[in-house]
Parts: sequence; C-alpha cells; structure tokens
Amino acid sequence: MSNLHPDRLFPASGPALNHARALYDSISELPIVSPHGHTDPAWFAENRNFADAASLFLTPDHYVLRMLRSQGLSYEALGLARKGEAPKVSDLAAWKLFAVNYHLFAGTPSELWIDHAFRWAFGIEEKLNAKNATSLYETITRRLADEDLKPLAVLDRAKVETIATTEFALDPLDHHKALKARGLNHRIRTTYRPDDVTDPVNPSFVANLQRLAEITNEDVGLWNGLIAAHAKRRAFFRDHGATATDHGVPDAMTADLPLHEKQALLTRALRGELDAAGKALFRAQMMTEMAALSAEDGMVMQLHAGSIRNTDPALVAYYGPNLGADIPSAGDFVNALQPLLKRFGSSQGFRLILFTLDETTYARELAPMAGYWPCLMIGPPWWFHDSPLGIRRYLDQVVETAGFHNLAGFNDDTRALLSIPARHDVWRREVARFLGTFVAEHRLSASSAAEIARQLAYDAAKLAYRLD
Amino acid sequence: MSNLHPDRLFPASGPALNHARALYDSISELPIVSPHGHTDPAWFAENRNFADAASLFLTPDHYVLRMLRSQGLSYEALGLARKGEAPKVSDLAAWKLFAVNYHLFAGTPSELWIDHAFRWAFGIEEKLNAKNATSLYETITRRLADEDLKPLAVLDRAKVETIATTEFALDPLDHHKALKARGLNHRIRTTYRPDDVTDPVNPSFVANLQRLAEITNEDVGLWNGLIAAHAKRRAFFRDHGATATDHGVPDAMTADLPLHEKQALLTRALRGELDAAGKALFRAQMMTEMAALSAEDGMVMQLHAGSIRNTDPALVAYYGPNLGADIPSAGDFVNALQPLLKRFGSSQGFRLILFTLDETTYARELAPMAGYWPCLMIGPPWWFHDSPLGIRRYLDQVVETAGFHNLAGFNDDTRALLSIPARHDVWRREVARFLGTFVAEHRLSASSAAEIARQLAYDAAKLAYRLD
Amino acid sequence: MSNLHPDRLFPASGPALNHARALYDSISELPIVSPHGHTDPAWFAENRNFADAASLFLTPDHYVLRMLRSQGLSYEALGLARKGEAPKVSDLAAWKLFAVNYHLFAGTPSELWIDHAFRWAFGIEEKLNAKNATSLYETITRRLADEDLKPLAVLDRAKVETIATTEFALDPLDHHKALKARGLNHRIRTTYRPDDVTDPVNPSFVANLQRLAEITNEDVGLWNGLIAAHAKRRAFFRDHGATATDHGVPDAMTADLPLHEKQALLTRALRGELDAAGKALFRAQMMTEMAALSAEDGMVMQLHAGSIRNTDPALVAYYGPNLGADIPSAGDFVNALQPLLKRFGSSQGFRLILFTLDETTYARELAPMAGYWPCLMIGPPWWFHDSPLGIRRYLDQVVETAGFHNLAGFNDDTRALLSIPARHDVWRREVARFLGTFVAEHRLSASSAAEIARQLAYDAAKLAYRLD
Repeated sequence: MSNLHPDRLFPASGPALNHARALYDSISELPIVSPHGHTDPAWFAENRNFADAASLFLTPDHYVLRMLRSQGLSYEALGLARKGEAPKVSDLAAWKLFAVNYHLFAGTPSELWIDHAFRWAFGIEEKLNAKNATSLYETITRRLADEDLKPLAVLDRAKVETIATTEFALDPLDHHKALKARGLNHRIRTTYRPDDVTDPVNPSFVANLQRLAEITNEDVGLWNGLIAAHAKRRAFFRDHGATATDHGVPDAMTADLPLHEKQALLTRALRGELDAAGKALFRAQMMTEMAALSAEDGMVMQLHAGSIRNTDPALVAYYGPNLGADIPSAGDFVNALQPLLKRFGSSQGFRLILFTLDETTYARELAPMAGYWPCLMIGPPWWFHDSPLGIRRYLDQVVETAGFHNLAGFNDDTRALLSIPARHDVWRREVARFLGTFVAEHRLSASSAAEIARQLAYDAAKLAYRLD
Repeated sequence: MSNLHPDRLFPASGPALNHARALYDSISELPIVSPHGHTDPAWFAENRNFADAASLFLTPDHYVLRMLRSQGLSYEALGLARKGEAPKVSDLAAWKLFAVNYHLFAGTPSELWIDHAFRWAFGIEEKLNAKNATSLYETITRRLADEDLKPLAVLDRAKVETIATTEFALDPLDHHKALKARGLNHRIRTTYRPDDVTDPVNPSFVANLQRLAEITNEDVGLWNGLIAAHAKRRAFFRDHGATATDHGVPDAMTADLPLHEKQALLTRALRGELDAAGKALFRAQMMTEMAALSAEDGMVMQLHAGSIRNTDPALVAYYGPNLGADIPSAGDFVNALQPLLKRFGSSQGFRLILFTLDETTYARELAPMAGYWPCLMIGPPWWFHDSPLGIRRYLDQVVETAGFHNLAGFNDDTRALLSIPARHDVWRREVARFLGTFVAEHRLSASSAAEIARQLAYDAAKLAYRLD
Repeated sequence: MSNLHPDRLFPASGPALNHARALYDSISELPIVSPHGHTDPAWFAENRNFADAASLFLTPDHYVLRMLRSQGLSYEALGLARKGEAPKVSDLAAWKLFAVNYHLFAGTPSELWIDHAFRWAFGIEEKLNAKNATSLYETITRRLADEDLKPLAVLDRAKVETIATTEFALDPLDHHKALKARGLNHRIRTTYRPDDVTDPVNPSFVANLQRLAEITNEDVGLWNGLIAAHAKRRAFFRDHGATATDHGVPDAMTADLPLHEKQALLTRALRGELDAAGKALFRAQMMTEMAALSAEDGMVMQLHAGSIRNTDPALVAYYGPNLGADIPSAGDFVNALQPLLKRFGSSQGFRLILFTLDETTYARELAPMAGYWPCLMIGPPWWFHDSPLGIRRYLDQVVETAGFHNLAGFNDDTRALLSIPARHDVWRREVARFLGTFVAEHRLSASSAAEIARQLAYDAAKLAYRLD
C-alpha cells in the first residue's frame, strides 16, 4: 500500500477536508512555474541520464546529510569526498547507511519529498529501510538509465513550464547559451546573483572585481564604472532568459550614500582596507544600487536575508559550503530596508521580493511592509520553513495583513530535481488546506477560494517574476 | 444570499462548533464598551450626518488605503488631497476604484469589517464590486441622511455603553465640554495622550511646552513645574470623562533618574540641545512620571509601544501621518519597563495596560510580566494583529501564563465609527471559538467558559479602565 | 463528576481524536523518567510525611504565588514569611485565600497540575473553591499522614524510575550520600549545577571559589587549578548518581579565549575587578570549559538560557529568589554558542541539551542547530512554556527541522513533587495529540507514531541523559 495518502496534509475530517480536496483537485495538475532555484543548468544543456540513487538522493541533499550527521554519522561514511580526496565508501554502502537511518526523517519535509519522488519517478510505494535498501538502489539506478528520466524529460513529465537557475555575476552562462541555441532560454532561465562581486567579505572579492572589469571592459575602480559593469552583466543575463536578480545576504541592511562616500568605500575595498563594518556598508550600498538598476531595467530583485553561513568552520575547510551548517538568525527588515525603500519603494516598475528565515518577521514586518509599498512582495517560506507546518505558519501570519495579492506564489528553491514536483505538491496541498479552512469557517466563498488557489499555485509566480 | 454566515470564524464542525455557537449567543448582544479608540469627538458633539460612502469607508481608513496603494494605486486616485491642494478625483470616482479592487481584501479583517458595516448599517448583503459600485454608493450615501445613522444614533444602535476618544495634552476638549453640558461625558469620554509634550522628537515640542505653561500657569522650565502642569491637565481631562491616559511610543523604554538629572534633561530639551539618545531618555523618564501621577490620581495608564512611524517620508511630506506607512518593529518589555516597575510595579491602585505590535512578546514577556506584577494588564491585539487569526495567536500565547483575569478585554481602537460593532463582533466570535475549543477539549466547563466569555466581551474592559 | 475528562487535551472529535486516544493508551502507564528537576533530596533521604495542604500546594509553588500576587494578593497574606520573620497568617487562612481565588487559574497549566494531583493523591474530584476550602484542606492534610504518601512511596506510586535533583557545586550532597548508602543513588540522582562558582555576578563568588579550593585542595587562583577543581567536583557528583550538569544563564553566550586571557580574567575576578562585560565573559568562558570537561567525562551538559532573574528587587529583598519575578527575554543561540560549538560541536561523546524561554528560537535556531550538530539536543518546553499550548507550539516548530530524534524527551523541572505525574501526563497527552494528528493527516503510519510516542514519553529521556 502506498505511504502517500491522497488526502495527506488536508484537515483530517469535516467540511474543511471536503473544501480542501475540491480546491486541490482544481490546481493539482496546473503546470509548474519554478522562478527561483538551484538546479544545475548543465543537466538541461547536456541532458544526460543521472548516474545512481545515492548521487541523486543522498550526497547532494544538504537537508538529508545534516540530519544524518546530527545523529552521529560522518559525511565520509555517507559518501562525501573530502576536498582533494576520493570518496572512502561506495555509493551503495552510503545508500545503505541512509536506508538504515531513514526513520530519522519521520515527520520532516525530506521524507515527504523523497517518498513522493520514489513514487513519482520510480513507482516505489515502500518506505526506504534496511531490508529494501539494496533492491531499491538497484531499481532506482536501473530506471535512471531510461529516456523518460533524462533531465529535460523530467521537466516535461513534471509539467514544468518555466524554471530558473541561479548563477553568479561572472558566470559565462555556457549552459544557458547552449539552451538558447535550442530555443529553450524561456523555459530554462538564469538569474543574476552578483554576491561574488557585491560582498567584500568574499575572499575572492578583489580578484572577482578585476575579472568583472575584464569581461565588461569597464573601469570598476570608479563607482560609476562598477555600476555600468553590473548593467552590462544584467543585460547579458537577461539575454539568457533572466527576469530576476537574487541577493543572498546575512541581513537586509541597505544604505544610500552620496557618490564620494561610495567611491571612498570602493577604493578601500579594492585595497583590502575595509573592516567588518565597512564591508557590510559596501554590501548595503550595493543592494540599493541593484534596486536602482532594477527600477531601470525591470529585473525583479530578490532578497534572501538572514542566513549565517558556514557556522562550522571545520565543515567548510574539509568539505566546502552548502552542506548543512548554515543557520538562521534574528532579522530586521523595517530599519534595514529604510534607505532603499525611501529611494525606490514607490518607483514605477520596481519590484523587490523578500525572503526571511526569521518567521517572527512575517506578521511584524513583512506583511505590514508588503501591504504598503507597491514594490514589495513576500516570497514563500524559505529553506527550513518550506514544510507543511512552516507553510501553515506563513499563511497564518501574512495573509490577513498583506492579502493574497502581495504574495509571490511559490518557489521550490531546490538543488534536487526530483523534489520539484513534490515541493509544489506540498505547497498546493497546504494552500488548499488553508483556503478550504477559510471556506469552512465562512471567510471566503468557494469560488473566491478557487481563484485564489489558482493564483497561489500558478499565476502569482508568473506575475511576480514577470514571466511571459 | 448574505456573505456573512452566522457561524463565521467558528470551528468548522464538531463539538467545538456547538460550544462556540452557544458561547457566542450568550455574549453577542451585550453592550459595547469601547475604552480606547480614535473616533472624532466632533461627530458626537455636533451629531451631523455623515456625507457619503467614500468619506466614510475609503479616505479615512488607512487599512484600506495602504492595501490599495500596495497594489499600485495612488492616494490621489483614491481621493486623497495633497497638503494644501484639493482632491483630484470625485468621491464617486475614488469609490469605483475601491470597488474594482475590493477583491484585494479577500481574507483580510478589512473585508470582515466592511461587509459587516454594509449589512449592519445599510442592509447590503452583496460584496462590493465593479458592477454594483455606483448603486451601492448611492444606497449608502442616501441612507446616511437618515436620523438613525447620525453618530449618536449609531452609538445607540450599536449598544455602545461607553466610548473613549483620544486627545493630546493641549487639546481644549471643546467637543467634550459640549458633551458634558448635555450629560454625555460618562458615555463619551476623552483620554489623556500627552505625546505632544512628552517626546522631544516632536518638532513642535518646545512650542508645545510653552503652550502647556500658558494654559496651566506652571513654570515648565522646572521639572516639578512640568509635572504639576501634567497633573492639572490630567485633572482637566478627568473632568471631561477621562479615566485613562495613553502613550504612543516607538519602544517601551522607561527611566528613573534623580531630580538633578531630570532637570538637566529638561533644560537641554527646552534649548533644543538633546541628541537622539537624550530625547529618548527624556521620553523614558516621562513614562515613569506618568506612572507616578497615575499611582496618585488613579488614571489607568496605557502604553502602545513598537510602531516605527512614518517610514515613508514622501507620504508624510505630501499627505501627512497615519496613512499606512507605520510599521512594527521588534520589541522588548522586560528590560525597558524595569525602571518604572521597580518604582511603581506594586503600587496600590496603579494600573498599566500594555499593547504590543511584536507578537513574540506575548508569551515571552507580556504574559509572564502580567502574571506577576499587580499593576500590569495585557491589552487586546493591536492594529495589524486585531484580526481573527491575530486574536487566535494572542489568546494562544497569553492565556496559559497570564490567565484570563490579567487581560483588559477588548479595544476597537478605530477611527471608523461603523467598524465598531464589526470589530467587537469579531473579538466575541474569536473568544467564543477559543473558549468553545477549551470546553470541547475538556479544559473548561461550559459554565466557566460562559463566565469568562462575558468577562472578555464586556466586564473586563469596564474593570480594567475603571469605568463606573 | 470528575473535572478531569479522559479525553482532555485531545482533538475534540474525528479521526485525530481516535488516534490520539490509542497513542495515549499505549504510553500513559510507562514509567516516569525525570532527568531534570528541583525536588528536595531531603524528602527522599528522610522520607518524612508532608505536613499540610498549604505547604504542599501553595507556599512553595511560584506559579501559583505569582498569579495570586498579580491579582493584588500579598505574599504575606498567602502565608509566606518575610526573611527573618514568622508567617503572619495560618496555613489554613492562606489556603482559604487560595481557594477563594482558584478561578484565576482557569485555563492555566497550574489548574491542570493541581486538579490532577488532587485526584491522583487524594481522590478529590471537585475543583477547589471557597465552599470546599476547609474540608479539602482537612482531607488533604489528614491523608498526608499516610504511609503511601511519603516521598519514596509517591515515587513508587507514580512509577518514577529515575529522578534527578539539582545541587550547586559546593553542596556536600549529604542527602545523596544517605540515599547512596541505601542503594538509591541510581534512582535518585544529583546534577552538577556550578552556577555558584562560574558566574562572578553572584555576590558570594569569591568566597565560593575559596570554598571550592578548600574542598578540592586545588589552587583556584590558577586557571588550570580552577578547572581541576571542577573536574574533582564533577567526579564527586557522578559518584552520587549525576549523569548531567546544568547551567542557568541569562543568555547562551560562550567564549574560547587563550590561556593567558583566561588567567587574567580569573585574577581580576578574584580581586573583584571585573565590570559587567568582564563578568559575562568569564561566565561565557566557563561554559566552554564545562563543555571541554563534558567531552572528557561524558556528563551531559544542560543549558537553561534566557531568564532575567529577580526583576523585582523588593521581592528578593523581603522574601528571596525563585518566587515568581523571573521573566524571559529575547534570545540568540546561533552567535552565542559559536565559540563552544566550533571547539566541541562535533566531539565524540559530547552532548549539550538546550532549553530556551524564547519560543522564537525553536524554529529559527534550535531546530536547525540540533539538526546539524551531533552534540546538540533540544530540551522540552521550559517553565512558562511547559503547558498544553506551549507544547503544541514547541512540537509545531521543532519537529520538521530537527526530527524526533534530536529531542531530549520530557523534563518535569518541578519543585512540586505531586505535580510530577500531572506534568508527564500533560506531555504524554500532547505528544499523543500531535502524533495522532499526524496520523490523521497521513504524515505518519499508526505504527511509526506509536514508536515515536514511546520514545518521546520514555526512551528519549533515558538516552539523552545517559541513564542506564
């Protein structure tokens, strides 16, 4: 019997269940719009088969790795290679360790996504466990050789209408070039994420700016030259499908300094003379510059604020970043965004989508701010909070103040291709649950709820990201 | 068919629904006590008919204006006049724009309040939309000419037993004088809100203090003279029905300095020499002075803390304050109130009602503090949080630690007269829902729940505000 | 009729109720593991009968006292003695005052615990009130003379398998010696809580360190001597059953300084020369030292962070500490614990259990951190949050990110012996409710839920605290 019940995540009984079912049925088959995420563009450009179960579900998934590590398993035993070394265990051995410990994921969104992908892509209805580990490994690995599980076929099968990847400012976008040559650059888009050249904390910052100068032929030692270089790169990214920029920052701090102060900051940054506060101020100013460019070129600006990256120095030293040691911290948007909003908050055509890891800002700051400023939209629950209960807390706290129309729909934000249909399915179920409960409690008519459900499941993402 | 279902906001089914219905039935017709709000005393003193639908529902309602603005509509197009200018569009044109966009309010408390007022005052059962905009405008505007929709008649019809308005310290209270002359000063009360003379951030602060000196004949250049001036104004306000003071502050900071430091602060304040920290300290000290006076004269002190005002400088420059650009920020009560509570926290007869815009303080600070200090009560959910889900979060987080008896009942806190019955109705429905669920989960007997429901709907507000 | 319904706290109806009932039935009779609390070891060592109803339920219970005080009752009238004085009222008079005001506890966990203890220990099914005050006082007091309500008999009757008390570092552990002599030191354990010698804010800090030197024969003027003294005391505590240490701190700040800076801090601390920041830094460094010792000796480290103690100076001056004036404040774990975790976060055998009074850290910090670091576990809801709704908020916010296996089960953390079965019962009911809802919403199978229920009710606490 399947462990995926058709009514999962809905209210357990009563009129809210019936309304949730009906709403879900009306949106479950809509195409997927995935305007922000971290899939690898090489997958789509090269369209090769995935290799095996472990390299699909285990080693690239920091949600999975971190949970196993928290229970004492080493990354080495899970098949990860230390920098400059080869893996110490076979994929199958790592997979078995994963299988033996799969019960650790009970109640987590990882379990929902993996169980969903097992069934969706491989027809597997069982939960992974010690007994079926080898046979499921073989089933999955064998099936991965099929044509209909090649990356582009997966997009078709999952009805992905559009998907955006995320590249740094210096990326040559070779894969997107190849995709463009095949007319796929409106289906598979890039996103301009210039963190590599906006944050002096990055150890390669000076070298990156030099590289930026080379590829844009601008004098990045002058503030206006730096901004012109960004404008060129943004145009280059737009030419490869980008409609948005993205900025991953520890906090939402912005600044709006006069030109001579900006120039002084830049000069000191290039000399490596900025202290921590100076580096933060440089980054803060760059956010306002990005807003200025967005107000001109119409690219939708995204701010992902509040993750303290690499809290385990040993992990980053031995294995690298993005492996589970990034932890949220308390956030502030109202004071931090003030300089940027004062300048561009009401600018025609400027749009800024905010993402937070601090749920306390939903009702206190994001909803009131998005309910006032024309430029602002609230992004969906991000990262740790993109879970059934996380989505409930989000809708509970943003809707009444921001309304439904200041929400940017859903992002799957994933590095795991097969989790895309699963993640959108969880969002759609939770949207159906929330709206179904509003209908059952007589706050919305069934027809209004159906319109809003469609919007949150599909239209809002296209509208928010200006996808045509 | 009405869009206001008799069971709206209750649990959708099961025993909790039945208990909620019964509890609501037992309190829905109780008189309304409205001890804090921002209605215009001129309405009651002059008792003139309201003019038209737009000036009743649209242009004075910052909840409505801000949502429309967030979706790109300009305040000008919504009928607001820039300072020193006349409105650019007719009331009907503004109203039509509102009607076309009324779907933006789906799921918001504004929708609940407006739909309720439409039916309650005008017998309108339809939702506002593009098609019925003109006819509803005409229906409402025509009906507003009737005797029974004059302001005092509205109070009667809504069973408003007492209502308090809010005036600054220098206000001559002319309308309340007129009301007193007609014996209405116990039904329509004022509230002493001396922000104009307690916060040196106010650009008119020095002029305001001079005016305070003139009308009280006290030397406000001396600290003791300043306090004596307050004492006189407080007595004057009490004489016009006031039982409470109110203080709107960006944070809950208090101070308890020796006299010579207070005098030094005052002297520098009058010379305009205080920096931002000095101004904040002055305000903090004034809060403790207000507590001292309340401990003497028995006026109930209210603290509304945590709104960052006027975050859009352009809005305040062109249109003025209180139009939607005030945003909450993270709050602290435990450290901020320490100086005041150390002095007056256990003073016989002193009462301080706390309001927050930072819901994280409910369970962490307000409930533990109100569950210890005899002077403290927790005010109802304020502003953005005075919504069905906001009330649920509030009750969820305060009741178990503070009990029901440290809660101050409900305030509608509104500038919109016709929203008063709607707002109290939402509170009563949510109280019935919360208590009905407690009965259904066997945490309260039905009879205890009925007593507590009555208290939260009616008695608590009278008791908390010392209304006789 | 009993006021304790067999389905209390469960979902009111539907499939979730049925699942919750079944899960509760499977765990309700499991033995109690109580690895952290504040019962008095003298009770068990001396095993004398408790004296009377008031000294059992009223005067030692700060939850009860603070609520009564918040409604204007004085501690004197409730039977508390001012320092150096005798009580001014009789136990019965105090009890009657409690009874008259017992309705104030409606909806609080205190009511649940007291009602439960009344029935569990005394067969009383009525709620305490003015009418039955004297008769219940007499019933309870009479019954307290029975053999089966002596402290050790209470442990038997409540199926307490193990209970830990908490003693400061200088405590001679005489009661635990006596218990050890009777072979009870594995059933009734101590816990090493060295706050008296780790926090220079303590006015007796220097004298305490001198005493520590005497009893360990170490030179505590040298940093290494101080650490060696701790190691000896820890061994002494382990010898009396301790498997854990506990640290009650205003915040979670840690430090990892070089030896010469640590020595300089210690020297200045002993001379009384540290300012507030220096004292905090000393304490922060001591936390990392405790982690180092735990990594060596295997004692489980507990951090209870975030209470601002003694916010009412008058209370502590007249009556003493721990009487209701400790209030939570906003917390940070991610930055504060960084120095400690960088050193010991992945150390084999090191375990750190985190407790917070700031619920905003559940989803934002504790769950992500516990879901990464092998050493970390999340303690159960603490103090004000150990209530039905508090447990719901906790499970809602930690499970999806941390999973169930990074949770440390339940602590009753109580000073009130008879509340132990009541508190574990509330936890078990809420666990059954949460898991039953997950089953009803098809997120867990009934069999997985049953395993997890048993773990959260019993196994997790033993595992987390290394109880054999």
